[in-house]
Amino acid sequence: MNVHKNSNPIGIFDSGIGGLTVLKEIHRQIPGENLIYFGDTARVPYGIKSAETVRRFSREIADYLVRLDIKMLVVACNTASAAALNTLRESLPIPVVGVLMPGAYAASRATHTGRVGVIGTESTVASGAYDRLIRNIRPGTEIFALPCPLFVPLVEEGRLTGEITALVAKEYLSPIKEKKIDTLVLGCTHYPLLKPVIGEVMGGSVTLIDSADETAREVRRVLTKNGLLNLGEIPPRSPLCQKGEGGDLNTGFIRYYVTDAPERFKAIGERFLGYEIPEVGKAEL
Amino acid sequence: MNVHKNSNPIGIFDSGIGGLTVLKEIHRQIPGENLIYFGDTARVPYGIKSAETVRRFSREIADYLVRLDIKMLVVACNTASAAALNTLRESLPIPVVGVLMPGAYAASRATHTGRVGVIGTESTVASGAYDRLIRNIRPGTEIFALPCPLFVPLVEEGRLTGEITALVAKEYLSPIKEKKIDTLVLGCTHYPLLKPVIGEVMGGSVTLIDSADETAREVRRVLTKNGLLNLGEIPPRSPLCQKGEGGDLNTGFIRYYVTDAPERFKAIGERFLGYEIPEVGKAEL
Repeated sequence: MNVHKNSNPIGIFDSGIGGLTVLKEIHRQIPGENLIYFGDTARVPYGIKSAETVRRFSREIADYLVRLDIKMLVVACNTASAAALNTLRESLPIPVVGVLMPGAYAASRATHTGRVGVIGTESTVASGAYDRLIRNIRPGTEIFALPCPLFVPLVEEGRLTGEITALVAKEYLSPIKEKKIDTLVLGCTHYPLLKPVIGEVMGGSVTLIDSADETAREVRRVLTKNGLLNLGEIPPRSPLCQKGEGGDLNTGFIRYYVTDAPERFKAIGERFLGYEIPEVGKAEL
Repeated sequence: MNVHKNSNPIGIFDSGIGGLTVLKEIHRQIPGENLIYFGDTARVPYGIKSAETVRRFSREIADYLVRLDIKMLVVACNTASAAALNTLRESLPIPVVGVLMPGAYAASRATHTGRVGVIGTESTVASGAYDRLIRNIRPGTEIFALPCPLFVPLVEEGRLTGEITALVAKEYLSPIKEKKIDTLVLGCTHYPLLKPVIGEVMGGSVTLIDSADETAREVRRVLTKNGLLNLGEIPPRSPLCQKGEGGDLNTGFIRYYVTDAPERFKAIGERFLGYEIPEVGKAEL
């Protein structure tokens, strides 16, 4: 695996902006890494599309990022992780990390009662991926999975709080709350943005699993294992770079590419990240 | 224009299922016509994407339908009509009908006070297309345009009524209601499905303009003008055909193609149409 230089960037992709929750956590935990984020905004959302189509889209994006010489690929989208992770792992010459396994591990550790809820897109829930992974790690766990299709558009519209979002959350989550779970997996990278509202409905006794945090830990583990952590020099900044949150000299660059509407991505993305996105490139797949 | 046989089908396309409101009205008004419906479900929705990208998608779909020997193209999507109609007209050898002009004419006729509201996707509202068209037809009209981004996902989820939809409608429409309009253009082919809820918020004194009805009239006018009405024999049914609503022998076929998830399209489409969709083909663009 060591054909790649440690200063090469990590590629992180999602259907749109949801994966920025993962990017933010990776950048917080290992700020020395150079990052390239890719949002497929021309074809967002993935959650209502077939596994076959999502696999094709994921493959196209992975090929694009590999041409940019990434040293690792992070599939920062639950739908794409469920549909395409195995295919990508088999075909790419670099380590590939998804968001499902880290989320499944975190949930398995967090539950005491063995009653776990999973919410996600239609496609992620239909794939049954979380059910299989959690039951493999912690046999006997009872899983209650439920799609929440309006959560993504609510987040995309920036409606993180308010009466409508609260009402939608209450309606979606009531059936899963009745199951007396003690742990709820936020199985879509958009959902962590709705944590306050979801927490309010579920009550303080339910642990919310946000796979961004756990995925960033996994990224660090895999980089370390492969001797790929960026401990050396950080390359000069390009026009598409941005300084990290802390702004110190040892912070890697972050570049952003989307397949459509860079200005819209920039506006919504900055709300997500809480810091400036200086420039967003338009990618042709 | 008469190189095409009159029994050739009319091609109707949309980003997804919204255009079925237009298909249904065309089939009701001119049931003898053979119809091919195309939904770009792999890339839906268009309303948040750039005009350039929507033009590219539209062109790909038009080329696909032209290869199926359509005699006319109906752009049954407001976003695609705003972005791509002129380009398609310039480049295609067949008549092209969009949904904006019929809607603009209907609104101009309906208003007495000259105060007209327009609701649509972000992209349609940002294009200003309705404003220009209505002011051309009826100079001095005051237009109040507003995007309603959650309406499409609400319809796609089948939430045509209920507390959440009512609340969203009330929140979106209140600012436009305050403008004392007497006519409201439903400037997205999904919105007619929400007519009861929208009508409830706006009150009985506001005329709701559903461009499907007017677009079907325009289709008939353009077919007549070009000598293309299907008065003759109806070709034998293919496996992808369906009998019309009435089921009589003079009813044309309807074929359906989507770019992804045909089963999902079939399920939601049947709810839209109120009649069975026997089969949906998967198109590769």
